[in-house]
Amino acid sequence: MAGHEVLLGSRDAARAQQTAAELSEAGNVAGAANADAAQAELVVVAVPYEGHADLLTSLADALEGKIVVDCVNPLGFDKQGPFPLEVEDGSAAQEAQRILPGSTVVGAFHNVSARLLDDPAVTHIPGDVLVLGEDRAAVERVIELAHAIPGARGLYAGRLRLARTVEGLTANLIAVNRRYKTHSGISVTGLPESLGQPS
Amino acid sequence: MAGHEVLLGSRDAARAQQTAAELSEAGNVAGAANADAAQAELVVVAVPYEGHADLLTSLADALEGKIVVDCVNPLGFDKQGPFPLEVEDGSAAQEAQRILPGSTVVGAFHNVSARLLDDPAVTHIPGDVLVLGEDRAAVERVIELAHAIPGARGLYAGRLRLARTVEGLTANLIAVNRRYKTHSGISVTGLPESLGQPS
Repeated sequence: MAGHEVLLGSRDAARAQQTAAELSEAGNVAGAANADAAQAELVVVAVPYEGHADLLTSLADALEGKIVVDCVNPLGFDKQGPFPLEVEDGSAAQEAQRILPGSTVVGAFHNVSARLLDDPAVTHIPGDVLVLGEDRAAVERVIELAHAIPGARGLYAGRLRLARTVEGLTANLIAVNRRYKTHSGISVTGLPESLGQPS
Repeated sequence: MAGHEVLLGSRDAARAQQTAAELSEAGNVAGAANADAAQAELVVVAVPYEGHADLLTSLADALEGKIVVDCVNPLGFDKQGPFPLEVEDGSAAQEAQRILPGSTVVGAFHNVSARLLDDPAVTHIPGDVLVLGEDRAAVERVIELAHAIPGARGLYAGRLRLARTVEGLTANLIAVNRRYKTHSGISVTGLPESLGQPS
């Protein structure tokens, strides 16, 4: 919807193509096998945590030299709701960087409500996208990408080793959603006006 | 400054009294030994993490039956800045609840800038105070207390087991502060207007 050309990847290219067709009104979206989608200029990993390590391992060669944006929230669910899973590397983003030593991993988009993103009637999603990474240019690139969501602002929020809190924060936001019956997001207060405001 | 009567506790009562005297213009603040401060109606634990467990262990009897608000952020610092420490209980708040089985522990005030709180020229601190706990009445009490900070809003953000992310988020906010030269805080977007707005 922001004007980017999107290649949707799946283990099954036909499935990706079918989903892309369903999204065709939203913009320039095509479906492809994961290995082909990994040829994109910038690759976004948005999968359930269970398949995260295996998927990245299988795509490590294709992802070499690329910016890989990891949006994965490692969460478990029980009768008390969601909770952050223990991740041996610290966070999904750090796990991705270990598996993809030749890629530049950036963590982002963890706390943006998928329900709002997926609703064509919602044209405005206020809040900040917290962006984590070691490479300043890659982080700036993803911050710009976040600004493509109307209402949102991208912000640097630390190195990859601080990704765990941002991934885990999604569990807190789900608790907020349940208590206050909403689809919440996060915003950082006290920033200079030159950065703009999430609105 | 919000009109509450405050008893400042220290291992050394004379030191607490001296600090209270320095704060006398801010409101009704007196100093006392920790065991005496623990007699307060509601007790706020705001200490460096290093002394957290020992202090609470020494006060467990005095704190029985009370609401104990834990604001402690277990952070380490190295040349790359702050990072969340591993806490065996998961979080400082959970550690407090283990040590104080007869108290009702609530986690809150982790992400409010101490620099802003401590500056008498700052009369307005916009942002949300994320409140974590098992006991709904105690959580509501602390949410009300958060509203005493002009500009702030208290919000329920999950059970104690979700406290680690809120404690660790302080490391991200310090990274934000360094990059953007500010004293940041956190806010939750997308909430019903009936809850008011952090302003």
